[in-house]
Amino acid sequence: MIESHIEVAVRSSFAAQGAMLALGASIVALDAGECTLELKAHGGTSQQHGYFHGGVIGALADSAGGYAANTVLMPAHECLTAEYKINFLNPARGPVLKARGKVLRAGRSLVVATVEVTSDLEGKPVLCAIAQMTLFAVATRTTQDPYNRSGDKKL
Amino acid sequence: MIESHIEVAVRSSFAAQGAMLALGASIVALDAGECTLELKAHGGTSQQHGYFHGGVIGALADSAGGYAANTVLMPAHECLTAEYKINFLNPARGPVLKARGKVLRAGRSLVVATVEVTSDLEGKPVLCAIAQMTLFAVATRTTQDPYNRSGDKKL
Amino acid sequence: MIESHIEVAVRSSFAAQGAMLALGASIVALDAGECTLELKAHGGTSQQHGYFHGGVIGALADSAGGYAANTVLMPAHECLTAEYKINFLNPARGPVLKARGKVLRAGRSLVVATVEVTSDLEGKPVLCAIAQMTLFAVATRTTQDPYNRSGDKKL
Amino acid sequence: MIESHIEVAVRSSFAAQGAMLALGASIVALDAGECTLELKAHGGTSQQHGYFHGGVIGALADSAGGYAANTVLMPAHECLTAEYKINFLNPARGPVLKARGKVLRAGRSLVVATVEVTSDLEGKPVLCAIAQMTLFAVATRTTQDPYNRSGDKKL
Repeated sequence: MIESHIEVAVRSSFAAQGAMLALGASIVALDAGECTLELKAHGGTSQQHGYFHGGVIGALADSAGGYAANTVLMPAHECLTAEYKINFLNPARGPVLKARGKVLRAGRSLVVATVEVTSDLEGKPVLCAIAQMTLFAVATRTTQDPYNRSGDKKL
Repeated sequence: MIESHIEVAVRSSFAAQGAMLALGASIVALDAGECTLELKAHGGTSQQHGYFHGGVIGALADSAGGYAANTVLMPAHECLTAEYKINFLNPARGPVLKARGKVLRAGRSLVVATVEVTSDLEGKPVLCAIAQMTLFAVATRTTQDPYNRSGDKKL
Repeated sequence: MIESHIEVAVRSSFAAQGAMLALGASIVALDAGECTLELKAHGGTSQQHGYFHGGVIGALADSAGGYAANTVLMPAHECLTAEYKINFLNPARGPVLKARGKVLRAGRSLVVATVEVTSDLEGKPVLCAIAQMTLFAVATRTTQDPYNRSGDKKL
Repeated sequence: MIESHIEVAVRSSFAAQGAMLALGASIVALDAGECTLELKAHGGTSQQHGYFHGGVIGALADSAGGYAANTVLMPAHECLTAEYKINFLNPARGPVLKARGKVLRAGRSLVVATVEVTSDLEGKPVLCAIAQMTLFAVATRTTQDPYNRSGDKKL
């Protein structure tokens, strides 16, 4: 269960992501520390052989992990993706792509999440990719930059 | 310099990626072991604060590294992305996103590439992300699956 | 269950790893697609504050994932690590470090494994790190180099 | 050039890493944002075929990147490794292993570094591995845990 004011904040932020809207991605499940996103295959999701593009799979995984983190950070904080790493296990052939993000560790500043991406083939879910990512918590709507080390003239 | 029959194969494959077409990405430079892609910001490339979405940055990096690999594999072979990892260094604020992929090591089966992603801000390129990736070479137009271990019933 | 001739091959290879011997690491569990390694803290395993060094944690994870892969590859094949990525979740404070490697996908050439590393603190296991890795299968005792692309003079 | 009080802090911290001492690793070059480490092959550095073990290569890379970060953080702050990812490009056959860490981006909280690992073969340096890593800055000698989100009862 997730509190309604958190859910509102999470869904509002997700709705403001033009990239997810353009891909046709939507939130299909939300819980404390968990977020599942889904999108249907269309012309804008394919690689050269018609399967889901690795970059699209990565983008959906990035958002699933990020909004899983946001369920434990919002409304006071929100996350920036510091990095993600994704391994592709099977071609993503099915008509639907589903990414389940899960927070493994939530600290004051750093959140670690994992994501599993599946695509149904003939009604059976196939594990297409797994991702591991690090997120950085910042105050919501901030322009604060975690890389801007004040007073550090050298770098 | 890249031979023209290789360039044709690389550009044809890239043109068949619906995901890159939808993002408005195009090849702006191609050389042996190198590929630079570019895309302009639009409604379908943004995260919740209007900057380029990390997943879009990752997708452009994935293709830049992949087509850098294809310049040394095509036309006989082409690559599948085995995995990629991307670190975000600065918000990607500029109107244009550019990803430069470079092959660091090309083996018979595995290719390792790195990618630098920049976005111009007030005419100055800002390094937004770096990626490191592993690609797997397969015969072109094959349906061969590197994960399908024939004769292995156990997994 | 793992067949005894596979177990012999896996244990022999592991026993030949001077780095694991020097760390005092041993195989504590072995199954088809799974390998658990353990080592006790000593002078050669610490970072500057006395906890397990991140590099030691990574080394144990690398071997745990690699030998998990070897349980499905040996005796005809063995794996080389193509890459690994590790996230640190908690300081590894306990007297014992345990890494559980698990094969997620075994293909003809590529194997993907994940690893969980724990360290007991006051009798309770604490998840210290998670890793995701790609392994490449080669014929056993081969000197074959997956990066040596025959006939490719350019790279 | 690096200021002497920073160099003292960096070298003192490195000298306290039992794992680096056990591997025989030493700092061979230090500059603002850069650190090069070196170690000689011995019984405790090998994998099953006698080359440098991937985990040892990763451990040296981890420390090289970490101390590169420390040159811009110390003496007031020091870094914890949040994560690293390493790709292996060539077998590390030579008698000496060298890891060059370089800070790419230093923020208030997060530092991103890259590392190149080489091993000389017949007097010629061979690029064996590349790594990309994220470090987290904490006050020196602190027991502060970036993952311990105060007030967060849920995770």
